Amino acid sequence: MIYTYLGPAGTFTEAALLQVPSARDAERIPAANVNAALEMVRSGEADAAMVPIENSVEGGVSTTLDAIATGDALQIMREALVTITFVLAVRQNIDSIEQIRSVSTHGHAWAQCRGWVESNIPEAEFIPASSTAAGALGLLDEETTHDAAICSPLVAEERGLKILRTEIEDYAGAVTRFVLVTRPGPIPAPTGVDKSTVILPLAEDRPGALMEILEQFVVRGVNLSRIESRPTGGGMGKYFFSVDVDGHLAQERVADALNGLHRVCPNLRFLGSYPAAEGLSSSVDAHNSDEAFSKANNWVSGLRTRLTT
Amino acid sequence: MIYTYLGPAGTFTEAALLQVPSARDAERIPAANVNAALEMVRSGEADAAMVPIENSVEGGVSTTLDAIATGDALQIMREALVTITFVLAVRQNIDSIEQIRSVSTHGHAWAQCRGWVESNIPEAEFIPASSTAAGALGLLDEETTHDAAICSPLVAEERGLKILRTEIEDYAGAVTRFVLVTRPGPIPAPTGVDKSTVILPLAEDRPGALMEILEQFVVRGVNLSRIESRPTGGGMGKYFFSVDVDGHLAQERVADALNGLHRVCPNLRFLGSYPAAEGLSSSVDAHNSDEAFSKANNWVSGLRTRLTT
Amino acid sequence: MIYTYLGPAGTFTEAALLQVPSARDAERIPAANVNAALEMVRSGEADAAMVPIENSVEGGVSTTLDAIATGDALQIMREALVTITFVLAVRQNIDSIEQIRSVSTHGHAWAQCRGWVESNIPEAEFIPASSTAAGALGLLDEETTHDAAICSPLVAEERGLKILRTEIEDYAGAVTRFVLVTRPGPIPAPTGVDKSTVILPLAEDRPGALMEILEQFVVRGVNLSRIESRPTGGGMGKYFFSVDVDGHLAQERVADALNGLHRVCPNLRFLGSYPAAEGLSSSVDAHNSDEAFSKANNWVSGLRTRLTT
Amino acid sequence: MIYTYLGPAGTFTEAALLQVPSARDAERIPAANVNAALEMVRSGEADAAMVPIENSVEGGVSTTLDAIATGDALQIMREALVTITFVLAVRQNIDSIEQIRSVSTHGHAWAQCRGWVESNIPEAEFIPASSTAAGALGLLDEETTHDAAICSPLVAEERGLKILRTEIEDYAGAVTRFVLVTRPGPIPAPTGVDKSTVILPLAEDRPGALMEILEQFVVRGVNLSRIESRPTGGGMGKYFFSVDVDGHLAQERVADALNGLHRVCPNLRFLGSYPAAEGLSSSVDAHNSDEAFSKANNWVSGLRTRLTT
Repeated sequence: MIYTYLGPAGTFTEAALLQVPSARDAERIPAANVNAALEMVRSGEADAAMVPIENSVEGGVSTTLDAIATGDALQIMREALVTITFVLAVRQNIDSIEQIRSVSTHGHAWAQCRGWVESNIPEAEFIPASSTAAGALGLLDEETTHDAAICSPLVAEERGLKILRTEIEDYAGAVTRFVLVTRPGPIPAPTGVDKSTVILPLAEDRPGALMEILEQFVVRGVNLSRIESRPTGGGMGKYFFSVDVDGHLAQERVADALNGLHRVCPNLRFLGSYPAAEGLSSSVDAHNSDEAFSKANNWVSGLRTRLTT
Repeated sequence: MIYTYLGPAGTFTEAALLQVPSARDAERIPAANVNAALEMVRSGEADAAMVPIENSVEGGVSTTLDAIATGDALQIMREALVTITFVLAVRQNIDSIEQIRSVSTHGHAWAQCRGWVESNIPEAEFIPASSTAAGALGLLDEETTHDAAICSPLVAEERGLKILRTEIEDYAGAVTRFVLVTRPGPIPAPTGVDKSTVILPLAEDRPGALMEILEQFVVRGVNLSRIESRPTGGGMGKYFFSVDVDGHLAQERVADALNGLHRVCPNLRFLGSYPAAEGLSSSVDAHNSDEAFSKANNWVSGLRTRLTT
Repeated sequence: MIYTYLGPAGTFTEAALLQVPSARDAERIPAANVNAALEMVRSGEADAAMVPIENSVEGGVSTTLDAIATGDALQIMREALVTITFVLAVRQNIDSIEQIRSVSTHGHAWAQCRGWVESNIPEAEFIPASSTAAGALGLLDEETTHDAAICSPLVAEERGLKILRTEIEDYAGAVTRFVLVTRPGPIPAPTGVDKSTVILPLAEDRPGALMEILEQFVVRGVNLSRIESRPTGGGMGKYFFSVDVDGHLAQERVADALNGLHRVCPNLRFLGSYPAAEGLSSSVDAHNSDEAFSKANNWVSGLRTRLTT
Repeated sequence: MIYTYLGPAGTFTEAALLQVPSARDAERIPAANVNAALEMVRSGEADAAMVPIENSVEGGVSTTLDAIATGDALQIMREALVTITFVLAVRQNIDSIEQIRSVSTHGHAWAQCRGWVESNIPEAEFIPASSTAAGALGLLDEETTHDAAICSPLVAEERGLKILRTEIEDYAGAVTRFVLVTRPGPIPAPTGVDKSTVILPLAEDRPGALMEILEQFVVRGVNLSRIESRPTGGGMGKYFFSVDVDGHLAQERVADALNGLHRVCPNLRFLGSYPAAEGLSSSVDAHNSDEAFSKANNWVSGLRTRLTT
């Protein structure tokens, strides 16, 4: 197995990939961006890609949401949660935060530590980096001049950087959810605590279309744990929805909901069923259980044996 | 084939039965009441029973609605519509309406001609009869004393009664719908303009249960052409609903709705799919067509071949 | 106060009227039928009429439902529940049920005791009467010939009839609900356990109209305790709904639901708010409480003070 | 009036601000980021801020959506649409795209021109800039070394930059929507073609909460033209929704929907009603018109005059 991930090495994405047991000793190729990682999977250069999909503070990761919603079909095999925490790494010659005049990091990390920065180093200039790891590695580079970097504990540890502060993020406990994406193939067997991801383009010519979509879930008692609206790129007001539901394709209520969704939204895309990283918040009513579906199916099938042609 | 019907002979129910080609030359046994007619079918004494189910003025016929909703299973094979119109038949010695002091008929017929009676023979006494035909036949009987009867044109014609007035009903164009009921068996093939009848007991312990039932129809675009609430007899506020929907069990949207209804309402009863006596008021959206269901099923089935066990 | 009721004296309707304290010593005029009773109220001949509206076995009383839904406006002031139980009264010369060859009663009472009749006096002829009391009083009349009558305990007691059997009804515990109807006027203050009755004609040209009506209740958390469909008389498939809801016009959620209903169903009719004879089955969520409505109104009103014209 | 906007000068945001007639000759202060611009308004340093809220390709602008959803209340006074098109500006010594080894721009602009870059200058290195204008201005700066910048036509024109290519964006016709934000105050009078913006935090403890919110719109026929889900920062699965609806607070259906929303979602935030930059896609049914609301209100008010206390 060859793995790729949103690089460079030492970011939170690599930390997520390292949660996959088989990835620890496998080849791990950092990709320049999410699209590049997913293209490596689509083309067969890699077998699986770990990419961020949602952050509990920043929200959905648009690039990933869009990239898996279009182009050649892909499949989500598992999810991984990583708690986001930042350290302030500095050049060897910096000994106190008073000396810091410039800080390099990715714009997202900068946003997540803005409060700390304003309270502690308000005069420091922000030097945008293409990733938190790139900013951190710049500290080892004589050609760059920034004094400090905001980065993950992983890269600081791996590269032996000097750390002045830890946990400088404004919201403790922020979590990023990553997904491991492959080409379409076998769907993991249900574990009992599973999720499924579906892409639902809103039909343009149908008012109340979102309501119609939600009803397909509601009548089968399928709970939505995530819903993200994204523009299709086809113009203002043209959306698709990326949703996670509690449950697995192997469960009748999920399969039946997909059935209904396909009718009102024929261009939908099923992205997989996989174990949930956390417990689910919803429970299933008896009348939405596999047994209830099975009994209902048997009853209707029995009736239909009486049809004359 | 042996037919029974709500008797006596000469009522609108017999007129409805005579719309069935095969019944015209078959044995036709009048029954004392709706329950008796249905019991003859259940026990095998008769093969089919014609009974009234709904009147455009009076509403649902409670006895029929209740009798087919409980007890041994039955099936509706067809429906028949009869326009209800009444004549005023009199004894041979009566020549003008001024002479009429008493009128016999069934309570329902009396109710439907009340306006005419109050305008034309306000002093006449009402003598309740067990049927319009019974009141009419009383005119030929020396033991009864009423001067006139309100009855169907059929019985007046068959028995050669003297008629003083025709079309004395208050609402011209009232129609009664009758259904031909058999023991469960083959379901007539769809004609393209069909109805299905379902009995839906409301689960007692579920608030919003009626809404939940209606949603099962709505999400499949199945139109309700009739809905009647009836008490289950289990106490105030305990209802079942008797509904007619546009469509046939052979159509996927109807079968799928039944599937969903069985889950939320496991004690439901399917009473049959049969040709509609009139055209349907609803049309079917493309996304609720058999083709849309078939495509959706194929899509989900394809996904499920990828499930691992 | 002058009261009228569905007569004759001694029926269950009079028993219901006697539950109204002020009616016990007031003038009580029996009316020939429900329409006659309501017309006495409309014309001012009587101040209030007690009429049956629903039976736990037989269902809605169509005549009443239709009569209060059309014509000059009326108002329901209170409801009364009467447990329905029948006695078998006989002529003085009858000493055992074996001697009974004919039984007179109203068709509804006959239907409710059919099981007992078939088991105990299967050969007895049914003589339809215009009311249970009329059948009972016939026992004191030399011109009639029936041996027995099925009637209320009240009339048997009042008239000193000979009783052979009590509680001969097939379903013990059947209850009839009666309503006291007046001309429109002051609406009784809320007691905390109240009901409201509304007539909702289904707009003809709007598919999904029933769903739309129910949603108006659902979004305000207003529970329906009774729903009856009735034909408008305007043709098959043209219905109005008669519904009871838990709650009082003085409560914001009820008033707001009426507001919404008036828009989708402008010909609706409000028939009153009045104390419920039994406890309500539903409770009110905090977000549908008067306080929640009041806060919401204040908030929107506050916003609207900022509108420029 | 003092205006601020997401700077620096020469970005699309300044182009949006220049659509406001009174801003053309007023003081316009570029802000370092969206939060800074909004803080200037909150603190009174500026009277209004122009900030981007949605892009037809990239989707919602998270920073803006989050910043106006929390903190001191703000109000949207108008919206402005700007068609996004990029030019490739170069240093004076560059004459053909073959000479370009590095390109500086903002990450978003880089994303929107990726296709063109990959086809035309695949070897070029990406130098992240804090804005498209910053990247462009770097071309005039001897301390930076990048050969080219992707920027708006406005800044290129204002600064007299050398342009090698125009319209290099991958999706022609991409549009960004900007909003002009003030402190809460008078709400502009309705023009007949208006929008309203509302922030709806999903109550944590209520399953089906999104459905409940949508129903409040649906029962009043209020159309949603935009819906964005955003994390509240309170943990995975905790969302608020930012929605635009067709209509104005001065219209009864909008006011009534806000009323209902306040009950199910008491922490909602109303951000204003303002003229729509484009025509609306929805029309209003007669039963959701101001006239229908007014008639319904009058009817219920009339009923309530009959309440006794």
